[in-house]
Amino acid sequence: MSTQPTADKSHVYISELASHVGQEVTLRGWLYNLRSSGKLLFPQLRDGTGLVQCVVFKKNVPEELFDALKGLGQESALVVRGSVRADERAPGGFEIDVTQAEVVQSVEGYPITPKEHGTEFLMDHRHLWLRSRRQHAILKVRHTVVRAVRDFLDTDGFTLCDTPILTPAACEGTTTLFELDYFGEEKAYLSQSGQLYNEATAAAFGKVYCFGPTFRAERSKTRRHLTEFWMVEPEMAYATLDDVMNLAERFLSAIAARVLDERQEELKILERDTEKLERIVPPFPRVHYDDAVKMLHDAHAKGELENRFEWGGDFGAPDETYISKQFDKPVMVHRYPAAVKAFYMARDPERDDLALGVDVLASEGYGEVIGGGERATSLEFLEEQLRIHELPREAFEWYLDLRRYGSVPHAGFGMGIERCVTWMCGIEHVRETIPFPRMLYRLRP
Amino acid sequence: MSTQPTADKSHVYISELASHVGQEVTLRGWLYNLRSSGKLLFPQLRDGTGLVQCVVFKKNVPEELFDALKGLGQESALVVRGSVRADERAPGGFEIDVTQAEVVQSVEGYPITPKEHGTEFLMDHRHLWLRSRRQHAILKVRHTVVRAVRDFLDTDGFTLCDTPILTPAACEGTTTLFELDYFGEEKAYLSQSGQLYNEATAAAFGKVYCFGPTFRAERSKTRRHLTEFWMVEPEMAYATLDDVMNLAERFLSAIAARVLDERQEELKILERDTEKLERIVPPFPRVHYDDAVKMLHDAHAKGELENRFEWGGDFGAPDETYISKQFDKPVMVHRYPAAVKAFYMARDPERDDLALGVDVLASEGYGEVIGGGERATSLEFLEEQLRIHELPREAFEWYLDLRRYGSVPHAGFGMGIERCVTWMCGIEHVRETIPFPRMLYRLRP
Repeated sequence: MSTQPTADKSHVYISELASHVGQEVTLRGWLYNLRSSGKLLFPQLRDGTGLVQCVVFKKNVPEELFDALKGLGQESALVVRGSVRADERAPGGFEIDVTQAEVVQSVEGYPITPKEHGTEFLMDHRHLWLRSRRQHAILKVRHTVVRAVRDFLDTDGFTLCDTPILTPAACEGTTTLFELDYFGEEKAYLSQSGQLYNEATAAAFGKVYCFGPTFRAERSKTRRHLTEFWMVEPEMAYATLDDVMNLAERFLSAIAARVLDERQEELKILERDTEKLERIVPPFPRVHYDDAVKMLHDAHAKGELENRFEWGGDFGAPDETYISKQFDKPVMVHRYPAAVKAFYMARDPERDDLALGVDVLASEGYGEVIGGGERATSLEFLEEQLRIHELPREAFEWYLDLRRYGSVPHAGFGMGIERCVTWMCGIEHVRETIPFPRMLYRLRP
Repeated sequence: MSTQPTADKSHVYISELASHVGQEVTLRGWLYNLRSSGKLLFPQLRDGTGLVQCVVFKKNVPEELFDALKGLGQESALVVRGSVRADERAPGGFEIDVTQAEVVQSVEGYPITPKEHGTEFLMDHRHLWLRSRRQHAILKVRHTVVRAVRDFLDTDGFTLCDTPILTPAACEGTTTLFELDYFGEEKAYLSQSGQLYNEATAAAFGKVYCFGPTFRAERSKTRRHLTEFWMVEPEMAYATLDDVMNLAERFLSAIAARVLDERQEELKILERDTEKLERIVPPFPRVHYDDAVKMLHDAHAKGELENRFEWGGDFGAPDETYISKQFDKPVMVHRYPAAVKAFYMARDPERDDLALGVDVLASEGYGEVIGGGERATSLEFLEEQLRIHELPREAFEWYLDLRRYGSVPHAGFGMGIERCVTWMCGIEHVRETIPFPRMLYRLRP
């Protein structure tokens, strides 16, 4: 194996072949598949940007090279030179007529073969599984979702204000927090949300967002849970629940439009019904919690839901699924019972038992993708909430300062990136939407 | 204080005033400063996007409002209506002739006054300190640096592949790692770098980057150290040390150009000598480690450096400063002694005692801002390195797989965002470049 690669600048990526038809090019990649037929070899090359079929005529290359190529195993590293031919029948639309090739590494026994593998096996080999077409497609969609999120917020005048991962106080009880020792001085906890810090930066910058990994030490093992996941949280000063709903609607629509625009090929690989994504356009239906509960009661009466939902609780998965199936686009359920929402939520001035919060339920039963709302502005109210929730007052003094010095109505939301990508891709499990998923029994590789 | 804010859509941001000259607008913000002169008040309003001076004539507003405004303390929340007048003498270039105003919250005793405060006091009040002009300017530069980084890499064909924060193995010794308990099953460590994971994703996507928080439990208390900081790490398959140097040079130049383009006003507030930033353009000088050592020896001989540097070590701060002061732009020192570099570094084929690594030293003595290089491709070499460095082989089996299955030359680098922002801003201490800094004795707010 050479340590010094072909450094000539004439190499191109497979994604660039369209502008090189009829030309000789050098491609650098890995062998994805190999068929042979007498004096012909058909190596499929992948280079991270795409897949292309190469054609090797025995008479066009040295015999030694032909024999070497013939024996290559999957994922062998390969530099290929040849002319680009447009061919509609070929996957990707091009073929390479090979004139030269260099085997950078000949591989045998690549663990992931075209046969079916169990999930545990694939997860143990996640570092290699990422090279498979489906995983590649999902993570390209993730790339585009992240890009769309940042472009939307940056263009809309939001300032990125990264919030800390290491936080001093267990703000919402310690049971689902990862705890660590901070230089033998005190305990630190891995952040579950940048929310409280966002409220400080929103007062400094007007419109802000944080976007980073968040952590939940939950012992749940569902297809929607990761212990480490990425969350984007925009927050706006001088804003209300309505502003948040308007933002969420424009935000999700922009993401879906971007994915449709940039990831058609990947959506095809994932067999995604793109019509479903095309329906993600404003306005989204807005349903009062009371009305959502009525829908669930009617469904129960008609025998469409097994359990009768009780007013006052958070929706379970079957409830969420039922509600979202009544619409062909995401639905925003607003004004939840204050008792099931976070202590910092503002109350509905017309109904003190309701919080000015909203959950956006993704379409097709993908569940809650956004949660947010308006924050309480009153110092006295928050002091009382801290008492009621038995939270350590001292740890929240800085947060209370935000109500002492220039308190204004403000609002925002959080969206988990992996849930959004799962939905965009139309896949089953959130674990495929992050390069190296962390779950209850999964910390490797 | 009203809980329902002025929801009319006629409000504008201070940054948008240029397109509203002669019009009546509504501004929503906070009182930054207040001067009065008999029948005139001059409240300065900030709204997160800028600062504007307002003029209140006693005869133009109700007496009650005039008296209320007159008594307002710093950071009082204020909605102001008035007409926009261009005025070259005014800071920002505009003034508002106030016709109406609403006091959202009257504030007394805001802790951060125009007088000087100690650093500890300001750090304890970081949640409020962020509202100050200088902090605001620094974090706007940070926003632009992050944006420039992502735009550069996304445009250049890199795929974002987030790497995990929770990692199973203590890859480079546990002394500087934060450790935590993972569900009582095993220890997990907070990532210091996405490097090893990047090598896996680069083999899947060709060109990748990770960009997230990284952690170092270092007991150092210098102006360059944070325990939690953000790092961007691009990695390229089929790439060499030269490719990394070419990339680093284009990358830093693009960041500086973007900051100059978008943040003139902030750089003015920071009194940044922008000529220094304008010099950050390709090509950067490339200095072999041996030649850098010669420079240091000469400097010592001339009495310009106190200590004589010994070949074989990493440069100390005075050495780095001396080298970088010999040039008016960043300098790339390459081919360090392998003994002081990470186990995964490729060796110089012409000198086995040298690693194909590069450190980019920022200009003006800002020190190392980028570190990177070419990675070793040989399985046998890496197996030996693991033995020599006494690293747990089992924890690296997945990493060794990358050399078993399609190993190709690959290379990349890492850049700490806060060091880059410190340099761009021309400031002293890294702690001001992140919203909520974490340091040895600083976990709050």
